[in-house]
Amino acid sequence: MKKVAVILSGCGVYDGSEIYESVLTLLRLEQQGAKYQCMAPDVPQLHVIDHQSGEPVLGESRNVLQESARLARGRIVDISTASPADYDALILPGGFGAAKNLSDFALRGDECTVNEDVAAFARAIHAAGKPVGLICIAPAMIPQLLGKGIRCTIGNDAEVAGAIERMGGVHQECGVDAIVEDAEAKVVTTPAYMVAGSMLEAQAGISKLVDRVLELA
Amino acid sequence: MKKVAVILSGCGVYDGSEIYESVLTLLRLEQQGAKYQCMAPDVPQLHVIDHQSGEPVLGESRNVLQESARLARGRIVDISTASPADYDALILPGGFGAAKNLSDFALRGDECTVNEDVAAFARAIHAAGKPVGLICIAPAMIPQLLGKGIRCTIGNDAEVAGAIERMGGVHQECGVDAIVEDAEAKVVTTPAYMVAGSMLEAQAGISKLVDRVLELA
Repeated sequence: MKKVAVILSGCGVYDGSEIYESVLTLLRLEQQGAKYQCMAPDVPQLHVIDHQSGEPVLGESRNVLQESARLARGRIVDISTASPADYDALILPGGFGAAKNLSDFALRGDECTVNEDVAAFARAIHAAGKPVGLICIAPAMIPQLLGKGIRCTIGNDAEVAGAIERMGGVHQECGVDAIVEDAEAKVVTTPAYMVAGSMLEAQAGISKLVDRVLELA
Repeated sequence: MKKVAVILSGCGVYDGSEIYESVLTLLRLEQQGAKYQCMAPDVPQLHVIDHQSGEPVLGESRNVLQESARLARGRIVDISTASPADYDALILPGGFGAAKNLSDFALRGDECTVNEDVAAFARAIHAAGKPVGLICIAPAMIPQLLGKGIRCTIGNDAEVAGAIERMGGVHQECGVDAIVEDAEAKVVTTPAYMVAGSMLEAQAGISKLVDRVLELA
Protein backbone atom coordinates (compact mmCIF):
# COMPACT_ATOMS: atom_id res chain seq x y z
CA MET A 1 0.00 0.00 0.00
CA LYS A 2 1.45 3.35 -1.06
CA LYS A 3 1.85 6.08 1.54
CA VAL A 4 1.49 9.73 0.56
CA ALA A 5 2.57 12.82 2.51
CA VAL A 6 0.11 15.72 2.26
CA ILE A 7 1.45 19.14 3.24
CA LEU A 8 -1.21 21.51 4.58
CA SER A 9 -0.91 25.27 5.21
CA GLY A 10 -3.76 26.10 7.58
CA CYS A 11 -7.53 25.71 7.20
CA GLY A 12 -9.40 28.06 4.88
CA VAL A 13 -8.88 29.28 1.33
CA TYR A 14 -7.87 32.88 2.15
CA ASP A 15 -5.24 32.25 4.83
CA GLY A 16 -4.55 28.50 4.74
CA SER A 17 -5.23 25.33 2.79
CA GLU A 18 -8.22 25.36 0.46
CA ILE A 19 -10.59 23.06 2.35
CA TYR A 20 -12.38 21.44 -0.62
CA GLU A 21 -9.09 20.78 -2.44
CA SER A 22 -7.59 19.19 0.66
CA VAL A 23 -10.61 17.00 1.41
CA LEU A 24 -11.00 15.94 -2.25
CA THR A 25 -7.30 14.97 -2.28
CA LEU A 26 -7.65 12.83 0.85
CA LEU A 27 -10.92 11.35 -0.41
CA ARG A 28 -9.33 10.25 -3.68
CA LEU A 29 -6.35 8.76 -1.84
CA GLU A 30 -8.79 6.69 0.25
CA GLN A 31 -10.76 5.69 -2.85
CA GLN A 32 -7.55 4.42 -4.45
CA GLY A 33 -6.55 2.47 -1.35
CA ALA A 34 -3.54 4.63 -0.51
CA LYS A 35 -2.46 5.65 2.98
CA TYR A 36 -1.72 9.26 3.79
CA GLN A 37 -0.26 11.42 6.52
CA CYS A 38 -1.02 15.12 6.81
CA MET A 39 1.80 17.40 7.94
CA ALA A 40 2.46 21.13 8.26
CA PRO A 41 5.12 23.51 9.53
CA ASP A 42 4.87 24.71 13.14
CA VAL A 43 4.93 28.43 12.29
CA PRO A 44 2.52 31.38 12.62
CA GLN A 45 0.18 32.12 9.75
CA LEU A 46 1.00 35.30 7.79
CA HIS A 47 -2.35 36.61 9.02
CA VAL A 48 -5.95 35.64 9.77
CA ILE A 49 -8.67 36.44 7.23
CA ASP A 50 -12.33 36.72 8.23
CA HIS A 51 -13.73 34.43 5.52
CA GLN A 52 -17.13 36.10 5.66
CA SER A 53 -15.93 39.65 4.97
CA GLY A 54 -12.65 38.75 3.27
CA GLU A 55 -10.84 41.26 5.48
CA PRO A 56 -7.78 40.63 7.70
CA VAL A 57 -8.48 40.27 11.43
CA LEU A 58 -6.12 42.66 13.18
CA GLY A 59 -4.30 41.49 16.30
CA GLU A 60 -5.14 37.79 15.88
CA SER A 61 -2.51 35.12 15.31
CA ARG A 62 -2.98 31.45 14.42
CA ASN A 63 -0.52 28.58 14.07
CA VAL A 64 -0.28 26.75 10.73
CA LEU A 65 0.19 23.31 12.31
CA GLN A 66 -2.71 23.73 14.75
CA GLU A 67 -5.10 25.04 12.10
CA SER A 68 -4.05 22.37 9.60
CA ALA A 69 -4.90 19.80 12.29
CA ARG A 70 -8.57 20.77 11.78
CA LEU A 71 -8.38 19.38 8.25
CA ALA A 72 -6.87 16.14 9.55
CA ARG A 73 -9.22 15.54 12.52
CA GLY A 74 -6.11 15.95 14.71
CA ARG A 75 -4.00 13.34 12.92
CA ILE A 76 -1.14 15.58 11.84
CA VAL A 77 2.62 15.76 12.33
CA ASP A 78 5.07 18.65 12.40
CA ILE A 79 6.83 18.44 9.05
CA SER A 80 10.20 19.11 10.71
CA THR A 81 9.87 15.73 12.45
CA ALA A 82 8.67 13.76 9.37
CA SER A 83 11.04 11.51 7.44
CA PRO A 84 10.77 11.67 3.62
CA ALA A 85 12.00 8.07 3.45
CA ASP A 86 8.69 6.96 5.00
CA TYR A 87 6.67 8.18 1.99
CA ASP A 88 6.22 7.15 -1.65
CA ALA A 89 4.90 10.50 -2.88
CA LEU A 90 4.01 14.05 -1.85
CA ILE A 91 0.94 16.20 -2.58
CA LEU A 92 0.47 19.89 -1.77
CA PRO A 93 -3.13 21.18 -2.01
CA GLY A 94 -3.66 24.87 -2.73
CA GLY A 95 -5.29 27.77 -0.96
CA PHE A 96 -3.57 31.09 -0.19
CA GLY A 97 -1.73 29.33 2.64
CA ALA A 98 0.66 27.88 0.04
CA ALA A 99 1.55 31.44 -0.98
CA LYS A 100 1.36 33.00 2.47
CA ASN A 101 2.49 30.36 4.98
CA LEU A 102 4.50 27.71 3.09
CA SER A 103 6.11 30.43 0.98
CA ASP A 104 5.92 34.22 0.69
CA PHE A 105 4.85 34.17 -2.97
CA ALA A 106 1.74 36.27 -2.17
CA LEU A 107 3.99 39.06 -0.86
CA ARG A 108 7.14 38.78 -2.96
CA GLY A 109 6.08 37.13 -6.22
CA ASP A 110 9.11 36.00 -8.25
CA GLU A 111 11.44 36.91 -5.37
CA CYS A 112 9.69 34.47 -3.04
CA THR A 113 11.30 32.02 -0.65
CA VAL A 114 9.93 28.75 0.73
CA ASN A 115 9.67 27.57 4.35
CA GLU A 116 12.90 25.66 5.06
CA ASP A 117 11.30 22.55 6.54
CA VAL A 118 8.79 22.30 3.69
CA ALA A 119 11.62 22.75 1.17
CA ALA A 120 13.85 20.14 2.83
CA PHE A 121 11.03 17.57 2.87
CA ALA A 122 9.90 18.22 -0.72
CA ARG A 123 13.46 18.25 -2.09
CA ALA A 124 14.24 14.92 -0.43
CA ILE A 125 11.11 13.34 -1.95
CA HIS A 126 12.00 14.82 -5.35
CA ALA A 127 15.68 13.84 -5.16
CA ALA A 128 14.66 10.24 -4.43
CA GLY A 129 12.76 10.11 -7.74
CA LYS A 130 9.35 10.08 -6.06
CA PRO A 131 6.42 12.02 -7.58
CA VAL A 132 5.18 15.38 -6.31
CA GLY A 133 1.67 16.70 -7.01
CA LEU A 134 0.82 20.38 -6.54
CA ILE A 135 -2.68 21.88 -6.77
CA CYS A 136 -4.09 25.36 -7.48
CA ILE A 137 -1.58 28.10 -6.49
CA ALA A 138 0.91 25.64 -4.91
CA PRO A 139 2.77 25.15 -8.24
CA ALA A 140 3.98 28.78 -7.93
CA MET A 141 6.48 27.37 -5.40
CA ILE A 142 7.95 24.81 -7.83
CA PRO A 143 11.00 26.75 -9.10
CA GLN A 144 12.15 27.56 -5.53
CA LEU A 145 11.00 24.24 -4.10
CA LEU A 146 12.15 21.70 -6.71
CA GLY A 147 14.31 23.58 -9.21
CA LYS A 148 14.17 25.31 -12.59
CA GLY A 149 12.90 24.01 -15.91
CA ILE A 150 9.96 22.04 -14.52
CA ARG A 151 6.71 22.19 -16.52
CA CYS A 152 3.60 23.01 -14.50
CA THR A 153 0.23 24.78 -14.54
CA ILE A 154 -1.75 27.17 -12.40
CA GLY A 155 -4.50 27.32 -15.01
CA ASN A 156 -4.54 30.54 -17.03
CA ASP A 157 -3.63 33.41 -14.65
CA ALA A 158 -1.13 35.48 -16.68
CA GLU A 159 0.38 37.25 -13.68
CA VAL A 160 1.16 34.10 -11.70
CA ALA A 161 2.26 32.26 -14.85
CA GLY A 162 4.66 35.12 -15.64
CA ALA A 163 6.17 35.00 -12.17
CA ILE A 164 6.69 31.24 -12.49
CA GLU A 165 8.46 31.76 -15.83
CA ARG A 166 10.68 34.53 -14.41
CA MET A 167 11.75 32.18 -11.60
CA GLY A 168 12.81 29.60 -14.18
CA GLY A 169 9.68 27.47 -14.36
CA VAL A 170 7.81 26.43 -17.49
CA HIS A 171 4.12 27.28 -17.42
CA GLN A 172 1.51 25.55 -19.53
CA GLU A 173 -2.15 26.61 -19.66
CA CYS A 174 -4.53 23.89 -18.54
CA GLY A 175 -8.27 23.37 -18.08
CA VAL A 176 -9.80 22.71 -14.68
CA ASP A 177 -10.48 19.04 -15.42
CA ALA A 178 -6.96 18.24 -16.62
CA ILE A 179 -3.41 17.86 -15.32
CA VAL A 180 0.03 18.91 -16.56
CA GLU A 181 2.85 16.44 -16.03
CA ASP A 182 6.57 16.95 -16.23
CA ALA A 183 7.50 13.35 -16.93
CA GLU A 184 11.23 13.69 -16.22
CA ALA A 185 10.74 15.53 -12.94
CA LYS A 186 7.70 13.44 -11.93
CA VAL A 187 5.82 16.64 -11.07
CA VAL A 188 2.04 16.74 -11.64
CA THR A 189 -0.12 19.88 -11.35
CA THR A 190 -3.78 20.89 -11.78
CA PRO A 191 -5.49 24.32 -11.55
CA ALA A 192 -8.43 23.40 -9.23
CA TYR A 193 -9.78 26.61 -7.63
CA MET A 194 -7.47 28.84 -9.67
CA VAL A 195 -10.16 28.16 -12.28
CA ALA A 196 -12.91 25.99 -10.78
CA GLY A 197 -16.44 27.29 -10.43
CA SER A 198 -17.69 24.31 -8.46
CA MET A 199 -16.49 21.45 -6.30
CA LEU A 200 -17.22 18.99 -9.11
CA GLU A 201 -14.93 20.91 -11.47
CA ALA A 202 -12.12 20.96 -8.92
CA GLN A 203 -12.66 17.27 -8.18
CA ALA A 204 -12.19 16.29 -11.84
CA GLY A 205 -8.63 17.62 -11.99
CA ILE A 206 -7.69 16.71 -8.42
CA SER A 207 -8.75 13.08 -8.83
CA LYS A 208 -6.68 12.84 -12.03
CA LEU A 209 -3.70 14.33 -10.24
CA VAL A 210 -3.97 11.91 -7.31
CA ASP A 211 -4.36 8.95 -9.68
CA ARG A 212 -1.30 9.96 -11.70
CA VAL A 213 0.84 10.62 -8.61
CA LEU A 214 -0.04 7.15 -7.32
CA GLU A 215 0.82 5.58 -10.70
CA LEU A 216 4.23 7.27 -10.61
CA ALA A 217 4.92 6.30 -7.00
CA MET B 1 -33.56 22.55 -9.30
CA LYS B 2 -33.96 21.90 -5.60
CA LYS B 3 -32.32 24.28 -3.14
CA VAL B 4 -31.03 23.02 0.20
CA ALA B 5 -30.09 25.02 3.28
CA VAL B 6 -26.99 23.67 5.09
CA ILE B 7 -26.51 24.87 8.67
CA LEU B 8 -22.86 24.96 9.78
CA SER B 9 -21.50 25.41 13.31
CA GLY B 10 -17.88 26.50 12.85
CA CYS B 11 -14.96 24.78 11.13
CA GLY B 12 -13.33 21.79 12.81
CA VAL B 13 -14.64 18.61 14.42
CA TYR B 14 -13.84 19.51 18.05
CA ASP B 15 -15.35 23.02 18.22
CA GLY B 16 -17.35 23.41 15.00
CA SER B 17 -18.68 21.57 11.98
CA GLU B 18 -16.97 18.30 11.09
CA ILE B 19 -15.12 19.32 7.94
CA TYR B 20 -15.29 16.01 6.03
CA GLU B 21 -19.01 15.58 6.77
CA SER B 22 -19.74 19.12 5.61
CA VAL B 23 -17.69 18.82 2.40
CA LEU B 24 -19.10 15.38 1.58
CA THR B 25 -22.62 16.77 2.05
CA LEU B 26 -21.99 19.68 -0.32
CA LEU B 27 -20.20 17.39 -2.80
CA ARG B 28 -23.18 15.03 -2.95
CA LEU B 29 -25.58 17.93 -3.38
CA GLU B 30 -23.50 19.10 -6.37
CA GLN B 31 -23.34 15.55 -7.77
CA GLN B 32 -27.13 15.37 -7.63
CA GLY B 33 -27.57 18.71 -9.35
CA ALA B 34 -29.02 20.48 -6.28
CA LYS B 35 -28.29 24.04 -5.25
CA TYR B 36 -27.27 24.84 -1.69
CA GLN B 37 -26.72 27.77 0.62
CA CYS B 38 -24.58 27.51 3.75
CA MET B 39 -25.73 29.46 6.79
CA ALA B 40 -24.79 29.76 10.47
CA PRO B 41 -25.70 31.78 13.54
CA ASP B 42 -23.71 34.96 14.26
CA VAL B 43 -22.69 33.95 17.80
CA PRO B 44 -19.42 33.19 19.63
CA GLN B 45 -18.21 29.58 19.68
CA LEU B 46 -18.45 27.88 23.10
CA HIS B 47 -14.66 27.69 23.00
CA VAL B 48 -11.68 27.11 20.68
CA ILE B 49 -9.99 23.70 20.63
CA ASP B 50 -6.39 23.25 19.45
CA HIS B 51 -7.05 20.36 17.06
CA GLN B 52 -3.48 19.13 17.33
CA SER B 53 -3.44 18.71 21.12
CA GLY B 54 -7.20 18.39 21.64
CA GLU B 55 -6.99 20.97 24.45
CA PRO B 56 -9.01 24.20 24.80
CA VAL B 57 -7.18 27.41 23.90
CA LEU B 58 -7.67 29.76 26.82
CA GLY B 59 -8.52 33.40 26.15
CA GLU B 60 -9.32 32.94 22.45
CA SER B 61 -12.76 33.55 21.00
CA ARG B 62 -14.05 32.79 17.50
CA ASN B 63 -17.34 33.56 15.78
CA VAL B 64 -19.46 30.66 14.45
CA LEU B 65 -20.55 32.52 11.30
CA GLN B 66 -17.03 33.68 10.42
CA GLU B 67 -15.47 30.25 10.99
CA SER B 68 -18.29 28.51 9.11
CA ALA B 69 -17.52 30.85 6.20
CA ARG B 70 -14.21 28.96 5.78
CA LEU B 71 -16.20 25.85 4.86
CA ALA B 72 -18.21 27.82 2.30
CA ARG B 73 -15.35 29.74 0.64
CA GLY B 74 -17.01 32.87 1.98
CA ARG B 75 -20.45 32.20 0.49
CA ILE B 76 -22.46 32.11 3.70
CA VAL B 77 -25.40 33.94 5.21
CA ASP B 78 -26.39 34.74 8.79
CA ILE B 79 -29.23 32.30 9.52
CA SER B 80 -31.23 35.04 11.24
CA THR B 81 -31.57 36.74 7.84
CA ALA B 82 -32.41 33.58 5.84
CA SER B 83 -35.97 32.80 4.78
CA PRO B 84 -37.10 29.16 5.16
CA ALA B 85 -39.55 29.69 2.26
CA ASP B 86 -36.56 29.97 -0.10
CA TYR B 87 -35.50 26.35 0.54
CA ASP B 88 -36.82 22.89 -0.27
CA ALA B 89 -34.90 21.04 2.45
CA LEU B 90 -32.44 21.44 5.32
CA ILE B 91 -29.30 19.47 6.24
CA LEU B 92 -27.24 19.81 9.42
CA PRO B 93 -23.78 18.19 9.31
CA GLY B 94 -22.21 17.07 12.59
CA GLY B 95 -19.10 17.91 14.54
CA PHE B 96 -19.05 19.06 18.17
CA GLY B 97 -20.23 22.47 16.99
CA ALA B 98 -23.75 21.05 16.74
CA ALA B 99 -23.58 20.19 20.45
CA LYS B 100 -21.56 23.25 21.53
CA ASN B 101 -22.59 26.15 19.30
CA LEU B 102 -25.98 25.31 17.74
CA SER B 103 -27.11 23.79 21.02
CA ASP B 104 -25.65 23.19 24.47
CA PHE B 105 -26.10 19.41 24.35
CA ALA B 106 -22.38 18.87 25.09
CA LEU B 107 -22.78 20.74 28.39
CA ARG B 108 -26.36 19.98 29.45
CA GLY B 109 -27.26 16.69 27.81
CA ASP B 110 -30.99 15.98 28.03
CA GLU B 111 -31.58 19.47 29.49
CA CYS B 112 -30.15 21.15 26.42
CA THR B 113 -31.55 24.11 24.54
CA VAL B 114 -31.09 25.07 20.90
CA ASN B 115 -29.98 28.39 19.41
CA GLU B 116 -33.18 30.40 18.77
CA ASP B 117 -32.42 31.37 15.18
CA VAL B 118 -31.44 27.81 14.26
CA ALA B 119 -34.60 26.50 15.92
CA ALA B 120 -36.86 29.04 14.19
CA PHE B 121 -35.40 28.19 10.78
CA ALA B 122 -35.51 24.41 11.25
CA ARG B 123 -39.04 24.45 12.70
CA ALA B 124 -40.33 26.50 9.76
CA ILE B 125 -38.81 24.02 7.28
CA HIS B 126 -40.26 21.10 9.26
CA ALA B 127 -43.71 22.71 9.68
CA ALA B 128 -43.89 23.24 5.92
CA GLY B 129 -43.53 19.48 5.39
CA LYS B 130 -40.03 19.77 3.95
CA PRO B 131 -37.37 17.15 4.80
CA VAL B 132 -34.59 17.66 7.34
CA GLY B 133 -31.37 15.61 7.34
CA LEU B 134 -29.10 15.50 10.40
CA ILE B 135 -25.66 13.89 10.52
CA CYS B 136 -23.41 12.49 13.29
CA ILE B 137 -24.18 14.16 16.67
CA ALA B 138 -26.62 16.71 15.16
CA PRO B 139 -29.62 14.33 15.67
CA ALA B 140 -29.20 14.83 19.45
CA MET B 141 -30.92 18.19 18.85
CA ILE B 142 -34.01 16.66 17.23
CA PRO B 143 -36.37 16.50 20.26
CA GLN B 144 -35.73 20.17 21.12
CA LEU B 145 -35.47 21.30 17.50
CA LEU B 146 -38.33 19.46 15.80
CA GLY B 147 -40.40 17.83 18.54
CA LYS B 148 -40.90 14.54 20.36
CA GLY B 149 -41.50 11.07 18.99
CA ILE B 150 -39.21 11.40 15.96
CA ARG B 151 -37.13 8.33 15.07
CA CYS B 152 -33.42 9.00 14.51
CA THR B 153 -29.92 7.58 14.91
CA ILE B 154 -26.55 8.68 16.22
CA GLY B 155 -25.09 5.22 15.57
CA ASN B 156 -24.61 3.14 18.70
CA ASP B 157 -23.47 5.50 21.49
CA ALA B 158 -25.57 4.43 24.48
CA GLU B 159 -25.09 7.64 26.44
CA VAL B 160 -26.19 9.96 23.64
CA ALA B 161 -28.98 7.56 22.61
CA GLY B 162 -30.24 7.53 26.22
CA ALA B 163 -30.29 11.32 26.36
CA ILE B 164 -32.26 11.46 23.10
CA GLU B 165 -34.80 9.00 24.51
CA ARG B 166 -35.14 10.95 27.77
CA MET B 167 -35.88 14.11 25.75
CA GLY B 168 -38.69 12.27 23.97
CA GLY B 169 -36.89 11.09 20.86
CA VAL B 170 -36.83 7.56 19.47
CA HIS B 171 -33.35 6.21 18.91
CA GLN B 172 -32.55 3.39 16.51
CA GLU B 173 -29.08 1.85 16.15
CA CYS B 174 -27.66 2.16 12.67
CA GLY B 175 -24.50 1.24 10.77
CA VAL B 176 -22.18 3.86 9.32
CA ASP B 177 -23.24 3.16 5.73
CA ALA B 178 -26.97 3.40 6.41
CA ILE B 179 -29.67 5.94 7.24
CA VAL B 180 -32.66 6.02 9.57
CA GLU B 181 -35.79 7.71 8.29
CA ASP B 182 -38.86 8.89 10.15
CA ALA B 183 -41.23 8.81 7.20
CA GLU B 184 -44.01 10.81 8.83
CA ALA B 185 -41.71 13.57 10.08
CA LYS B 186 -39.54 13.50 6.94
CA VAL B 187 -36.43 13.41 9.14
CA VAL B 188 -33.39 11.46 7.91
CA THR B 189 -30.26 10.73 9.99
CA THR B 190 -26.92 8.91 9.62
CA PRO B 191 -24.10 8.26 12.14
CA ALA B 192 -21.10 9.39 10.02
CA TYR B 193 -18.16 10.14 12.36
CA MET B 194 -20.05 8.97 15.46
CA VAL B 195 -18.97 5.60 14.06
CA ALA B 196 -16.87 6.10 10.89
CA GLY B 197 -13.25 5.01 10.77
CA SER B 198 -12.58 6.58 7.39
CA MET B 199 -13.87 9.22 5.01
CA LEU B 200 -15.20 6.51 2.70
CA GLU B 201 -17.29 5.04 5.51
CA ALA B 202 -18.73 8.46 6.37
CA GLN B 203 -19.38 9.16 2.69
CA ALA B 204 -21.48 6.02 2.27
CA GLY B 205 -24.07 7.12 4.82
CA ILE B 206 -23.92 10.84 4.03
CA SER B 207 -24.52 10.28 0.31
CA LYS B 208 -27.53 8.09 1.11
CA LEU B 209 -28.86 10.79 3.45
CA VAL B 210 -28.47 13.55 0.85
CA ASP B 211 -30.10 11.41 -1.83
CA ARG B 212 -33.07 10.60 0.40
CA VAL B 213 -33.51 14.21 1.54
CA LEU B 214 -33.57 15.31 -2.10
CA GLU B 215 -36.13 12.59 -2.95
CA LEU B 216 -38.39 13.83 -0.14
CA ALA B 217 -37.99 17.50 -1.11
